[in-house]
Amino acid sequence: MAKQYAGLSRRRFLAGAVGAGGVGVLIACGNQVGQLQDSPYATNAARNVGSASNPAATPQAGAMVMDQTNATQSAGSAPAGTATPAKDWKAMNLHHEEGIKTFLAQPKTLRSAPMPFTLQDGIKVFEVSAKKVQWEVTPGQMVEAYTYNGVVPGPEIRVTEGDKVRIRLKNDLGDEGTAIHFHGLLIPNAMDGVPFITQPPVNPGELFIYDFIARNPGSHMYHSHLNSAFQVTKGLLGAFIIEPKDKSAYPQFDKEYTMILGDGPLGYTLNGHGFPGTEVVTANKGEKLLVRFMNEGLMIHPMHLHGMPMTIVAQDGWVNTPYKCDTVNVAPGQRMDAIVECTEVGAWAFHCHILSHAESEMGMFGMVTALVVK
Amino acid sequence: MAKQYAGLSRRRFLAGAVGAGGVGVLIACGNQVGQLQDSPYATNAARNVGSASNPAATPQAGAMVMDQTNATQSAGSAPAGTATPAKDWKAMNLHHEEGIKTFLAQPKTLRSAPMPFTLQDGIKVFEVSAKKVQWEVTPGQMVEAYTYNGVVPGPEIRVTEGDKVRIRLKNDLGDEGTAIHFHGLLIPNAMDGVPFITQPPVNPGELFIYDFIARNPGSHMYHSHLNSAFQVTKGLLGAFIIEPKDKSAYPQFDKEYTMILGDGPLGYTLNGHGFPGTEVVTANKGEKLLVRFMNEGLMIHPMHLHGMPMTIVAQDGWVNTPYKCDTVNVAPGQRMDAIVECTEVGAWAFHCHILSHAESEMGMFGMVTALVVK
Amino acid sequence: MAKQYAGLSRRRFLAGAVGAGGVGVLIACGNQVGQLQDSPYATNAARNVGSASNPAATPQAGAMVMDQTNATQSAGSAPAGTATPAKDWKAMNLHHEEGIKTFLAQPKTLRSAPMPFTLQDGIKVFEVSAKKVQWEVTPGQMVEAYTYNGVVPGPEIRVTEGDKVRIRLKNDLGDEGTAIHFHGLLIPNAMDGVPFITQPPVNPGELFIYDFIARNPGSHMYHSHLNSAFQVTKGLLGAFIIEPKDKSAYPQFDKEYTMILGDGPLGYTLNGHGFPGTEVVTANKGEKLLVRFMNEGLMIHPMHLHGMPMTIVAQDGWVNTPYKCDTVNVAPGQRMDAIVECTEVGAWAFHCHILSHAESEMGMFGMVTALVVK
Repeated sequence: MAKQYAGLSRRRFLAGAVGAGGVGVLIACGNQVGQLQDSPYATNAARNVGSASNPAATPQAGAMVMDQTNATQSAGSAPAGTATPAKDWKAMNLHHEEGIKTFLAQPKTLRSAPMPFTLQDGIKVFEVSAKKVQWEVTPGQMVEAYTYNGVVPGPEIRVTEGDKVRIRLKNDLGDEGTAIHFHGLLIPNAMDGVPFITQPPVNPGELFIYDFIARNPGSHMYHSHLNSAFQVTKGLLGAFIIEPKDKSAYPQFDKEYTMILGDGPLGYTLNGHGFPGTEVVTANKGEKLLVRFMNEGLMIHPMHLHGMPMTIVAQDGWVNTPYKCDTVNVAPGQRMDAIVECTEVGAWAFHCHILSHAESEMGMFGMVTALVVK
Repeated sequence: MAKQYAGLSRRRFLAGAVGAGGVGVLIACGNQVGQLQDSPYATNAARNVGSASNPAATPQAGAMVMDQTNATQSAGSAPAGTATPAKDWKAMNLHHEEGIKTFLAQPKTLRSAPMPFTLQDGIKVFEVSAKKVQWEVTPGQMVEAYTYNGVVPGPEIRVTEGDKVRIRLKNDLGDEGTAIHFHGLLIPNAMDGVPFITQPPVNPGELFIYDFIARNPGSHMYHSHLNSAFQVTKGLLGAFIIEPKDKSAYPQFDKEYTMILGDGPLGYTLNGHGFPGTEVVTANKGEKLLVRFMNEGLMIHPMHLHGMPMTIVAQDGWVNTPYKCDTVNVAPGQRMDAIVECTEVGAWAFHCHILSHAESEMGMFGMVTALVVK
Repeated sequence: MAKQYAGLSRRRFLAGAVGAGGVGVLIACGNQVGQLQDSPYATNAARNVGSASNPAATPQAGAMVMDQTNATQSAGSAPAGTATPAKDWKAMNLHHEEGIKTFLAQPKTLRSAPMPFTLQDGIKVFEVSAKKVQWEVTPGQMVEAYTYNGVVPGPEIRVTEGDKVRIRLKNDLGDEGTAIHFHGLLIPNAMDGVPFITQPPVNPGELFIYDFIARNPGSHMYHSHLNSAFQVTKGLLGAFIIEPKDKSAYPQFDKEYTMILGDGPLGYTLNGHGFPGTEVVTANKGEKLLVRFMNEGLMIHPMHLHGMPMTIVAQDGWVNTPYKCDTVNVAPGQRMDAIVECTEVGAWAFHCHILSHAESEMGMFGMVTALVVK
């Protein structure tokens, strides 16, 4: 990706621009701010002006033809309007570029390894400690996180359909109860993790053991279900993936990537990190990449991939009629399995399209990464 | 459900936990808050530590390996981070439990009966009075509501495809006009209920008569279309269900439940009530339960059912290609028909998965109920 | 539409109401505000009262039967509740009506013409100038907008699958860089318009030339990808439509209308205008109308059409399994192609169903228009 950008240097960029036709036909625009536009409420014949290819038709300030049906303004007087204070675009550019450079210099893999397990009497046993740590959301930015085993998201739990699973939850939070809900799993009611409904809270220092069989394959999650608006957004969440015994019922893919969305006290995050601290997603040309979107935040995020469409093949672990899109809406609690055929080479921006979750005047932040196809 | 919880007493809970293997392999965590985590931006080899099953690898405070690409912080200095003030978890637990107990002690049915009608010359005639009442959103919490016939939601109107329907709307609000829009119905334009577009407003003290034939079956709604952001969220809303003449075109079900979502001045509500004042949804094992989600709020709510998937068979009354999920996004104005095969016995939490609409530090509130399968 | 409303005069309206049966069976409600309702948490037998057709059962103030399970309130004491201050409904009506009249008196077409192009060596060349203007969002309301060629949305770019396309972007903003991202297009990476990832920013006064082949047909967009949360919501956006070479793969339609949703500093807008400055959508009875919804805002908008369902035939330009609805959720970055069979004559409200984006106490505003079928 660094090569990508280096390949289009400023020199070549300007040369290319001028070489391709010059700027002669463009309006000399100067620095005027807030050029007055004709009223869109004028007659049709007087509109459709001001296109750059038709400079003669550019409206003159003050030459407004007001719609006589306009009851809230006396025709003929030019309304005042608004204006944004002038900006320092060189400083803005520097901030933008700095973020991108930091992002590209990241290590290849930021996600923690899947959670290890031990096999005891044919049961896959996972040890989970809920505990607080100082978490580095973006390089240098430390925020208190509530975590499973010290990382956000908690390490991925991955088992196979039919497996006997045991989760040993130790509450090391110190000052509040917790419980794990296995979000999306078909599970005995007593193992569902909802305090006072299916179990008592797991209080500080206590251990609770969840025992169940992994019945329904797919992209699921595990997270707190006590004081959850707080505990989950602080980081008590993770992916719980059940691989199907028979893989023929699920669309084929070559590689996979789980992307957990967050928007709580850690800021706007992908897998616990905000841009430029997010991880670059990579694939080789021709590969089919499965992206497992999971939303553990409090807001709906429409995730947009540049350059290639996504085929949504499953929701919440259930394989449905597929549909193709480039922007998939992922609501809190939902998991969307998207397959991307990586046909286009390059560094493709990949971000939440609620642009205020992704970019400020000072550059990209939050829910932004890139898919780099080589 | 009380039995459910009673069956897993604290004593058994702790005994089970210890009996299943003890806590010896867990880190003794003490009460330290904000344990320092290694930088995720360190090299890959240095990460993947701190899992509970690997206590020897637990990072030491201060032993951070900073990423040299991190431009915003000098390597080696420990960043300060943040911390949440200590909590009183015993008080929090008590509040949580109290809410659940109040919820479970609720009467079985909170919804009002369907709206009665009289048959006049072959027309089903419904009398609707728009009026203000003091509405008990949760036990003891009285809030002024604008209602149809004194209840929130207004009583369900239920007719059959092809029926001649007359709605006699009396405006008893006292100080503002209103009008009813039949949301989702194919209807003559003059009966569409949009003041100044299809009719004058129905002013205080006036009566307006809507006459139409129920053409398109499905889950629809009736609500105000004047000052609607205010009047609808205050309670001028209800379900309008048209049963199909020929039921074979609609998926089979044994039982149904309409759940209207709200998020206005009455707070976050299901059928006009917030938790713990919400109604428990019940079904018998083996039944197919149709849930008609309807959103009359101003926000999108991803409704999540624990324990069993939902098959979305219709949107806005139209039967579409079904899809399976456990979290269905319901936007304002939308109706989603979900069929749940009640195969799993127990009390299953059923709530909006925007967790801040469902739980606070002091327990569950708002858009929370449970599906109890017996 | 004026005729529509004129045809149901106040005189006829009241006459019809009385002629159809009088108001005798209605409760004489007077002006009391905040009539006390019985507790919904009472026993079932004591509820289901207060319907207008059963006045004898109207609850008496104070005759509340409190649920004994209610732990937060002492039974028998009437809770205080809340009340809205009295309103001036005559003034409210006048404001509402004034807005509708302004809307209906609008010229038929507010949208600018498609962007012109010149053919150079077999390439369709479009000239785009990013510049600030004062934009009339609603009649008389001037707001600074960032525009392509002086209008919001920028003029529609429309080409045919397989066309060679050149976009010559001149940055006439004066004080900040910009770049165009062709949202949804399969495009060479260097033409993707993401500053510092695929190109340098186009700084004030500079020209950048985008060259590509229009590969994937459908409803796409072009917009800024620098400081985008600001620049796009200020107006640097437009439709980019690629017509399929072979039209047989796309559902048939007779007429089309592109509706771009916005919610930034210009307010809640459809095609750059807020109600009553929005354009009326028109069709003839029997026509199939294609509506191309595109969301360039920062919020999800569930768009609701009265009177007729919509069939969603494509998302983001990709033809998928169709589904029918009357309220389609359109998230930022998404494009939804909806076909409406215009079978019902009349003026049908067409608006975002987040009602606070469409109506206030003083009338409709923002994301509201009407589909008029003649």
